[in-house]
Amino acid sequence: MDLNDALEQVRPYLKQERFDHTKRVVDTAVKLAQIYKADQYQTEIAAAFHDLAKYWPKEEMKQIIQTVSYLPKDLLDYHHELWHGPAGAYLVKQKYGIEDQEILDAIRYHTTGRAHMGKLEKIVFLADYIEPGRSFPGVHEVREMAWKDLDEACQMSLHNTIEFLMSKGATIYPDTFYAYNHFTKILSS
Amino acid sequence: MDLNDALEQVRPYLKQERFDHTKRVVDTAVKLAQIYKADQYQTEIAAAFHDLAKYWPKEEMKQIIQTVSYLPKDLLDYHHELWHGPAGAYLVKQKYGIEDQEILDAIRYHTTGRAHMGKLEKIVFLADYIEPGRSFPGVHEVREMAWKDLDEACQMSLHNTIEFLMSKGATIYPDTFYAYNHFTKILSS
Repeated sequence: MDLNDALEQVRPYLKQERFDHTKRVVDTAVKLAQIYKADQYQTEIAAAFHDLAKYWPKEEMKQIIQTVSYLPKDLLDYHHELWHGPAGAYLVKQKYGIEDQEILDAIRYHTTGRAHMGKLEKIVFLADYIEPGRSFPGVHEVREMAWKDLDEACQMSLHNTIEFLMSKGATIYPDTFYAYNHFTKILSS
Repeated sequence: MDLNDALEQVRPYLKQERFDHTKRVVDTAVKLAQIYKADQYQTEIAAAFHDLAKYWPKEEMKQIIQTVSYLPKDLLDYHHELWHGPAGAYLVKQKYGIEDQEILDAIRYHTTGRAHMGKLEKIVFLADYIEPGRSFPGVHEVREMAWKDLDEACQMSLHNTIEFLMSKGATIYPDTFYAYNHFTKILSS
């Protein structure tokens, strides 16, 4: 499967604007992969599929999380927006036979992040945050940092995300906090 | 042991300004205890002793955390400012024979908070945050909320604390964000 195959597979499951977002995430991730010497093929496939489950029926995602042994059940106590990464990683494996754990992890953790992310995970996580269509408060600074220091850019985006969720009175999934702490420790040591 | 005994025991271990803070925490905690129908004696003793270990030698606190089985070792990976609550609870038990678990927990968790805090824990946690000598950004709003809704005031103070720590580029101890999530869930349900 090449990038075009992956995009054609994912297209029917996304609205047009989400498909356009996906293509921008691919472009951004590939640029980051060049700078940080990540594998281009893994980057393309992970980025193309990262939002596969974005509009998956909630009940099906719930069932996937409930029944797939390696997915943590506490996801169900948090906002369903957090389900499409883990459910998507499972679906990509089942539907397309993708077994590359680095690709699957990059899809799985692209929304929450986690401590000890691998390079591909960081690239997809960050590309999703900074692709040119994004306009969160603070995204400009993260975008500039992304080309200089991958860890610092991840830390900034996690800081922004936690702040944004708290400002809405929302809960924070533990992986996100652990990711923030992890990058903060790395950067201060 | 009554309140005066407790204050006299703690006085030699504190600087004058910290002792004055302690007395204000006692006064504030007792007022909260009246509103929320907590036991006055427990409140006085917990508030009087909450900062016993504030200036305890770091090496001794480290040794306490390393050797006392019920204290989590990951505290040592975080700022030593977080050690005086857990170390203080241990010392209060050892030195003064205080065995009341609610008092000990209120001392132990007064800095970090935790999910599922009991009423006395919330009162000491909040009194420490809002006593009249405090001037954090946002403390005024928490102070007003404290007399209306204990859980909402705790949530606001945790939100502020996490925001403050992130603004300094500091890590957040997991109990603190689990406490934030806990109160946020309670308030949104």
